[in-house]
Amino acid sequence: MKIILIGASGTIGKAVEHELRERHEIIRAGRNSGDLQVDITDTASIRRLFEQTGPFDALISTAGNVHFGALEELDDSHYAIGLKDKLMGQVNLVLIGREFANDGASFTLTSGVLSEDPIRHGSSASMVNAALDGFVRGAAIELPRGLRINSVSPTVLQESLPGYAPYFRGFKAVPAATVALAYAKSAEGHQTGQVYKVL
Amino acid sequence: MKIILIGASGTIGKAVEHELRERHEIIRAGRNSGDLQVDITDTASIRRLFEQTGPFDALISTAGNVHFGALEELDDSHYAIGLKDKLMGQVNLVLIGREFANDGASFTLTSGVLSEDPIRHGSSASMVNAALDGFVRGAAIELPRGLRINSVSPTVLQESLPGYAPYFRGFKAVPAATVALAYAKSAEGHQTGQVYKVL
Repeated sequence: MKIILIGASGTIGKAVEHELRERHEIIRAGRNSGDLQVDITDTASIRRLFEQTGPFDALISTAGNVHFGALEELDDSHYAIGLKDKLMGQVNLVLIGREFANDGASFTLTSGVLSEDPIRHGSSASMVNAALDGFVRGAAIELPRGLRINSVSPTVLQESLPGYAPYFRGFKAVPAATVALAYAKSAEGHQTGQVYKVL
Repeated sequence: MKIILIGASGTIGKAVEHELRERHEIIRAGRNSGDLQVDITDTASIRRLFEQTGPFDALISTAGNVHFGALEELDDSHYAIGLKDKLMGQVNLVLIGREFANDGASFTLTSGVLSEDPIRHGSSASMVNAALDGFVRGAAIELPRGLRINSVSPTVLQESLPGYAPYFRGFKAVPAATVALAYAKSAEGHQTGQVYKVL
């Protein structure tokens, strides 16, 4: 398959590439690195990406930022960051990418455990991750031409603990290589409308 | 208790008022009707509302619009409607309203069954409803002063079937009066971070 991997330079992205690269052609995309550059908060940039990649069989997004901060200090503008970036950035990869997707192609987005298991400073992430899973369930039943869509909802990564451990006490971290398996299941399997939790 | 009811003229709002009015003081708010007017998509309008109501013990929102339409015809702009209105409109009722909330006050927002059980033309509602439930779970653990927050996630209303039945075949509709009980449980009970599903 020809697979477009957005966020290829991130911890999950690198693990996904490692999992898939021996079986598939991977086009690596990122904001500042990779084979092609894309800013997922900019629909024109997304369209330029697909004009460069041409038709594809799978799109995997491991990209997207949200604002973390104490609820007390958050207003509308802080939530807007995650809605524009991790949520609509990834949704727009689907809404625009579908024009370039081969019949039966799959989209795999990244949400996260905070949708259901919240942490301090994580209310925007809880909102955005849940929204992504909801969108996936809703969009899956309307996509034409056998197009599929799933999300991967991982818990905290072992590789991220050095920076984030104080926020994730009591969470069982998983290695990025284990999370990467869920992207392979989504892209190489045949299900749609699934939220693959990796806990 | 002094309860502010946003969306009081809607089908659910009227049922909530009926359920609560004999036990509590209800301030009815709506875009064009009620005791006070508020446009929840406008943070200045929300602030003016609370400046008029003063301190309160419970806020109940049964307000918020999303765009329904075939996935094939939706772009970024259609999803933005629900994100600004039903999602951030209700979230901003919390982010601004908390300044006016008495200790131990509760916020009850409205999401809906499409977060988990999607229908044709409902991908924006699936996104927004799930986002609301995620926000509620995330915000609940950070609210100070005993403030509480829950959402009510109802299935289709019996009262709405005349207009919406073709989209909800196979769903067991519930009367608005039954849905209203969940708002009473949220406002008059003591739980927080809950998504009360009424199916």
